[in-house]
Amino acid sequence: MSKEAKQEHPLPKLAVVIMAAGKGTRLKSRRPKVLHEVGGKPLLSHVIGTAARLAENSDIYAIIGHEAERVRAAMASTGVQFIEQKEQRGTGHAIQCAREAIAGYEHILVLSGDVPLITADTLQHLMTLHLAEGAAMTILTATPEDPAGYGRVIRRSPDRSDVDAIVEQKALKGEQHSIREINSGIYAFKVAPLLKYLDKLSNDNSHREFYLTDMAAHLHTGGEKVAALKAEEAVEVLGANTIAELVALDANLRMATARRLMAGGVTIFRPETCVIDAEVEVEPDTIIEPFVQLLGKTRIGAECRIRSYSVIENCTLGADVVVLQSCVLTESVVSDSARIGPFARIRPGSEIGQEAHVGNFVETKKAKLGKGAKANHLTYIGDAEVGAGSNIGAGVITCNYDGVHKHLTRIGQKVFVGSDSTLVAPIEIGDGAYIGAGSCITRDVPSGALAVGRSRQVVKEGWAVARHAAMEKMKSTS
Amino acid sequence: MSKEAKQEHPLPKLAVVIMAAGKGTRLKSRRPKVLHEVGGKPLLSHVIGTAARLAENSDIYAIIGHEAERVRAAMASTGVQFIEQKEQRGTGHAIQCAREAIAGYEHILVLSGDVPLITADTLQHLMTLHLAEGAAMTILTATPEDPAGYGRVIRRSPDRSDVDAIVEQKALKGEQHSIREINSGIYAFKVAPLLKYLDKLSNDNSHREFYLTDMAAHLHTGGEKVAALKAEEAVEVLGANTIAELVALDANLRMATARRLMAGGVTIFRPETCVIDAEVEVEPDTIIEPFVQLLGKTRIGAECRIRSYSVIENCTLGADVVVLQSCVLTESVVSDSARIGPFARIRPGSEIGQEAHVGNFVETKKAKLGKGAKANHLTYIGDAEVGAGSNIGAGVITCNYDGVHKHLTRIGQKVFVGSDSTLVAPIEIGDGAYIGAGSCITRDVPSGALAVGRSRQVVKEGWAVARHAAMEKMKSTS
Amino acid sequence: MSKEAKQEHPLPKLAVVIMAAGKGTRLKSRRPKVLHEVGGKPLLSHVIGTAARLAENSDIYAIIGHEAERVRAAMASTGVQFIEQKEQRGTGHAIQCAREAIAGYEHILVLSGDVPLITADTLQHLMTLHLAEGAAMTILTATPEDPAGYGRVIRRSPDRSDVDAIVEQKALKGEQHSIREINSGIYAFKVAPLLKYLDKLSNDNSHREFYLTDMAAHLHTGGEKVAALKAEEAVEVLGANTIAELVALDANLRMATARRLMAGGVTIFRPETCVIDAEVEVEPDTIIEPFVQLLGKTRIGAECRIRSYSVIENCTLGADVVVLQSCVLTESVVSDSARIGPFARIRPGSEIGQEAHVGNFVETKKAKLGKGAKANHLTYIGDAEVGAGSNIGAGVITCNYDGVHKHLTRIGQKVFVGSDSTLVAPIEIGDGAYIGAGSCITRDVPSGALAVGRSRQVVKEGWAVARHAAMEKMKSTS
Repeated sequence: MSKEAKQEHPLPKLAVVIMAAGKGTRLKSRRPKVLHEVGGKPLLSHVIGTAARLAENSDIYAIIGHEAERVRAAMASTGVQFIEQKEQRGTGHAIQCAREAIAGYEHILVLSGDVPLITADTLQHLMTLHLAEGAAMTILTATPEDPAGYGRVIRRSPDRSDVDAIVEQKALKGEQHSIREINSGIYAFKVAPLLKYLDKLSNDNSHREFYLTDMAAHLHTGGEKVAALKAEEAVEVLGANTIAELVALDANLRMATARRLMAGGVTIFRPETCVIDAEVEVEPDTIIEPFVQLLGKTRIGAECRIRSYSVIENCTLGADVVVLQSCVLTESVVSDSARIGPFARIRPGSEIGQEAHVGNFVETKKAKLGKGAKANHLTYIGDAEVGAGSNIGAGVITCNYDGVHKHLTRIGQKVFVGSDSTLVAPIEIGDGAYIGAGSCITRDVPSGALAVGRSRQVVKEGWAVARHAAMEKMKSTS
Repeated sequence: MSKEAKQEHPLPKLAVVIMAAGKGTRLKSRRPKVLHEVGGKPLLSHVIGTAARLAENSDIYAIIGHEAERVRAAMASTGVQFIEQKEQRGTGHAIQCAREAIAGYEHILVLSGDVPLITADTLQHLMTLHLAEGAAMTILTATPEDPAGYGRVIRRSPDRSDVDAIVEQKALKGEQHSIREINSGIYAFKVAPLLKYLDKLSNDNSHREFYLTDMAAHLHTGGEKVAALKAEEAVEVLGANTIAELVALDANLRMATARRLMAGGVTIFRPETCVIDAEVEVEPDTIIEPFVQLLGKTRIGAECRIRSYSVIENCTLGADVVVLQSCVLTESVVSDSARIGPFARIRPGSEIGQEAHVGNFVETKKAKLGKGAKANHLTYIGDAEVGAGSNIGAGVITCNYDGVHKHLTRIGQKVFVGSDSTLVAPIEIGDGAYIGAGSCITRDVPSGALAVGRSRQVVKEGWAVARHAAMEKMKSTS
Repeated sequence: MSKEAKQEHPLPKLAVVIMAAGKGTRLKSRRPKVLHEVGGKPLLSHVIGTAARLAENSDIYAIIGHEAERVRAAMASTGVQFIEQKEQRGTGHAIQCAREAIAGYEHILVLSGDVPLITADTLQHLMTLHLAEGAAMTILTATPEDPAGYGRVIRRSPDRSDVDAIVEQKALKGEQHSIREINSGIYAFKVAPLLKYLDKLSNDNSHREFYLTDMAAHLHTGGEKVAALKAEEAVEVLGANTIAELVALDANLRMATARRLMAGGVTIFRPETCVIDAEVEVEPDTIIEPFVQLLGKTRIGAECRIRSYSVIENCTLGADVVVLQSCVLTESVVSDSARIGPFARIRPGSEIGQEAHVGNFVETKKAKLGKGAKANHLTYIGDAEVGAGSNIGAGVITCNYDGVHKHLTRIGQKVFVGSDSTLVAPIEIGDGAYIGAGSCITRDVPSGALAVGRSRQVVKEGWAVARHAAMEKMKSTS
């Protein structure tokens, strides 16, 4: 639960129960349904994240069943509770399995583990109405464009919150067919009446399952109040039963993030082609070109330009940074006015200094480049420090691995490392040193020194001519 | 003709005639219309492929005309027959050119070489109706959203298969304007009546062409039965007259393939951005990221992840393989749990072993990597074998070409090849050998040996300082 | 002003006034609104480019205000005039600021600096009507799908050009609500009446601004004729107030270019994913794959294939060129039948010869490759010439930089440069020379000679075995 949410909207102690036991048969997948990803993380992670804005994680209960251990393992780090529903006998049965867990709370909120777009704001409104109305059950509803297939909510009158019943699609009669308000499957319950009527649920239906929707009728009959709140955006209650629906949810989530950034002054060309995770932040006047991916907790400063086909994951970029085409940056920091790519791979632990350049076909890993340092071509810099103003030539390799251990390379300031040089770590190159092209450097180089390690060139005049003639002769005689 | 299709639906001996003589003037192209590609292959290849599910290839006749030799050459490997229509005088004239060829068959099916989405199922239904009705001509029809411009099919009554006439758009009268059922240009004919009336066709029209559509009236007048079958999906009979229409067909075909894979449990994010050829197969629970291309006969196992901007053509990937961003894999095999990229180029004939790693800026060609072998950075491995557990350092090059011949490199198991080494083939490195960084290796290395081939490092203290001072002096005095 | 436009449609001497002073508050950006880019260049550049087809650049006046100096600097090279509007007090006030500048012209055309899709043809039609009608003010109008929020144009009667008034959305009365014809904010004015009534404009409105739209009523009242011309395509008068609207304009512009190329016989698969600047030209039968970017003044010949994720900027490509995936080409020339990529970076000043090959992870800069020359793998060729038929092995580096100066490398014809060689410039390799793999070449090599510069290989048998044993022992005793 975020601090702000808790302070702004004080709620009575609340349990959140998340339905996460289903198999999702129509996904045709061995992966449990709630572990399918949209927007860069599992469906269930979205729902837990939202629930955590209304309740402590220890008050959140995930009902798990299909591949229970896999779901538990994937979500273990969240600190939520797990309740196992060993047989899948419906949503009502799921709550029956949670009976002991919820008994100590006054109210519960029931969420679906496969409805990831639900917002904390909407749930807050649901709880507020639930409490204000003194309802035993408050149903979150929506009016999607096509209500076909959903249960409809029969209100006492259109402008009242009181609900008489939830009627399944196939049981609709007469004028009920025109009702477009559907049951989302998200509910608030007062725990006492819920527990009182919980065993009244029957599985006398075609699927032989216990349905939580039937609680509306039981509570209503028992004289309890059943209320409903309509979500402002029907998209919030969308679930996904097929992969095609899942990827549509994903596109929806991504586009929402792109729109949020654009509203804040970020230019995103072809926003529908960009893949931007929900937690990404970008400062105004940065330009994101088509087909860019900004993932995880990436932060990007102002006036940057991220060119196409680049993927930036869990990185922090300063202002005025240019990332050229087809770069992959991961878990690294890039300072103001640096220039990366194209075709650069910035691996975890890299720190690219202000105005530094990392060019094409260059890989860095745990590499710290000082201000204005340059490594522009076909280079591998791993486990290394490069001082300010140093220039690493084309084809330079830091040999950080001896087959057993990784070793460090330390290059001082204003060093010139000639092209195609090999620096065998552990090694230290002093400030202002100069390494001749093509050298293999195995021992430290003092500041201001020249180091060369290459063979003398030998020339055999006419050799290639003779070889060519011999080859031709072989051909003609064979 | 696939074995199953033939066994399931026995048909009388059938010729298929494919109209492939047109120029496609509105394409503004020198390439013959039927050789334009959609879904990764020429329009005509799609149609021949479908025809081959209903007839032997030797019973398929392509009518060629515009750039006849180019079309014949492109399709030669299919084994179909070619009939040249030297002048383009209409579809009726095309059949007149095929008169001798079709005389020996009882029935023919007439297809358009530029209508690639037609399915064998629909054609099967067309033939079944044609035979059941004893029709002389059976017209495949459709009801597209916008029928404007197409000839309309006038049925005797809406629920009967009998057709009275085909009426061109501009000849529609009164209530006929409301008819939305169009003639697709795909027909089944009984050969005897077709040949009997073939010379009745007249070119007394604005284009001075002989139209096969006119056969409907001639046969009807002659007391023969003309029937019609409506295709379930109008998209199946779509042709393309402009490049814009061609690329729309292409998008249609690709999306159909993406939907097929998703229905089978494959997650494809932003499926409308992926380019997947029709014959590609992917196992469930594999995730395909946006902008991926799977081409040719590629097969991908379960639980893989193919990251964005990667192109995989005619490859076989095992299960649990990760292909990172921006890789190009062609005609190669990748075993279970291998990890490729980003920025890897796997050229034809590569075999990447189980759990092997091929990293950034690495190219392989006819290279066999054993289980767990690694080549992670800036490396070229061509015409080479790398044994299980061996590690190829950054910047290693196998020199497989001496300017005349290609030679092999054999690296044993658990070999360590230090960074920036050069292996001059033909060469063999024994199991467990160790190559020092920066070495040029020109002779075989025994198992368990160390091999080094590099120069001693020479250091000149103060050289760089002096050079810098000299440079500064030159500047100040110039 | 293009020569053709001027000759075809002679107009009286005309000033064009472009409104470019606005801040664009809703963009949430520090960048001035008219400097936001669509279609690869600032909004204002589009408008100036169009204006220049109707008037000399010295007769074009940009009214600047917000970040005036930044706008002036960005547009300085166009040769247009600038008039500063120090306070933003409305469009009428902007014209008041331009009073002196326009006094010497008979007519002016008023354009919006943030309406980039307006065409010279439409403006030509506007001026033609304006002159034919002898109007004091002629308003360009449009009928967009959703006119909400725009001022409506009240014509005397639907089929007449005479306008009675422009009525703001909130002032619409009765039947006026059904009027869908909007004021675009683009006008032609006769200068004399404009100046006569200019001071009649009042800022007695909620924003306290002087509106140019009010001139319609003043002129009408004064007995002057006010006319209107409806733009054929409403999209031409679209502006952008938010980033989301800006990027929609951009997509619009790009798609228009893609459609133009497709109409000319170029195949562009998934045209909505390609980014093609307006001035790009491509010959027929070239195939552009998805996600390709063609920028600047790029020219591409016939029968080329540009594969996905490649970006080509300000280059000229001959016919039959293949650019494989993920290449970046900038300001270079590629001759017929050359083959580039994948993963090639062609930097400015490169000239790739006929049938030459530049392969994966290869960078060229100011490099001239002769006919059939090849550099296929992991190579950097900078400031170099490579003669016809020469082969550059994998991992070759031209060392063009000594830390102070750049030097040239000259490689003759039919030279073989062995893999992993280093060529230290300035250097010259004669025709037919052969460089052994792994050599560092620091002195010129004569024609037909062999040059080698590498160390002898030393082998220590059993060394790796012993080392491994020692390591194991250390582990077991620690």
